[in-house]
Amino acid sequence: MWQQTEITLKARSRGFHLITKEICQQLVVLPQIDCGILHLFIKHCSASLTINENADPTVRTDMENHLNIITPEKAPYFQHTDEGDDDMPAHIKSSLLGASVSIPITFGQLNLGIWQGIYLGEHREHGGSRTIIATIHGE
Amino acid sequence: MWQQTEITLKARSRGFHLITKEICQQLVVLPQIDCGILHLFIKHCSASLTINENADPTVRTDMENHLNIITPEKAPYFQHTDEGDDDMPAHIKSSLLGASVSIPITFGQLNLGIWQGIYLGEHREHGGSRTIIATIHGE
Amino acid sequence: MWQQTEITLKARSRGFHLITKEICQQLVVLPQIDCGILHLFIKHCSASLTINENADPTVRTDMENHLNIITPEKAPYFQHTDEGDDDMPAHIKSSLLGASVSIPITFGQLNLGIWQGIYLGEHREHGGSRTIIATIHGE
Repeated sequence: MWQQTEITLKARSRGFHLITKEICQQLVVLPQIDCGILHLFIKHCSASLTINENADPTVRTDMENHLNIITPEKAPYFQHTDEGDDDMPAHIKSSLLGASVSIPITFGQLNLGIWQGIYLGEHREHGGSRTIIATIHGE
Repeated sequence: MWQQTEITLKARSRGFHLITKEICQQLVVLPQIDCGILHLFIKHCSASLTINENADPTVRTDMENHLNIITPEKAPYFQHTDEGDDDMPAHIKSSLLGASVSIPITFGQLNLGIWQGIYLGEHREHGGSRTIIATIHGE
Repeated sequence: MWQQTEITLKARSRGFHLITKEICQQLVVLPQIDCGILHLFIKHCSASLTINENADPTVRTDMENHLNIITPEKAPYFQHTDEGDDDMPAHIKSSLLGASVSIPITFGQLNLGIWQGIYLGEHREHGGSRTIIATIHGE
């Protein structure tokens, strides 16, 4: 069985956001899959998807602060600056973290570890709503 | 054909470890797949999976040393510190490197490059055993 | 339907290169897939695949310059140096960016965002031609 769904995430502030519940609510065929894979792909190159800790919100804050150290604004060699100081760092973060995650499905559920959740990395100050393509495939 | 296997990796020291053989030994249906994909997912957010050089152990040492420079312990802005100095850097490394790898299967074998192997990134001092979900899908 | 194709990319200079068209030209079954996934895997550990901005070439230059800051040559702790100063940084970049990308296929086309393209990250000075395994699966 294949199912593909376009999911629109509401606009969020710059930083990392836990979106596991919001995603799962839209995966209506998930309970029917005994064995499969969920593939999530974000159709933007200034945001990212990643898997990380689902309990303590300071993990998301620390992640944002550290990614800003690794990929600071206003690096003197940046040439792609017309769309704002947050734009080129956002592109680099999106490649470091990735545009997609894929998660095993086992007996109708995402087979995530107990502490794992799905993060949206919003790397722009005003990124607006974001579009994700969710592709479920399994049997 | 779909097959899903839970693989338990023994506890390993902090750093990068080549696990290609240990993974392949548990993929009993691999020889039956002419064309497919192996998806490996680690159910933890302080460890990671990645593909890298399979021959020289100093690559793994250099990787560990450099990741420790990129993501040092005791950054002054870290708030998520209750579980030890190695915890928040481990979370960041797990997102930079990723929780999953997917590898093409061709004529019953992983279609890796001659120098490629599967690495476990163990980012905690005492991470304990780690669980991987291996999903094979192909024909 | 499954289809696997080995794609040989011509040798390119160190840096990031947009390869979307070159890849798509070789995916002959793509128009027949209503719903599926394209998986691209590079069989090398000193190059990478990632998704990023497809319009402004300075994004690729800025990406290269910034990755060279994150992962500089001649770090004093590097032991894996026999194959040149660019070798160990190339291995680290390949793990940070990743060896594979997977992209949803919708009604015969890659379902990329309007600004997204497929990048080859060539991390060696003289990496030579590079081999990619393209696996298409869908219905």
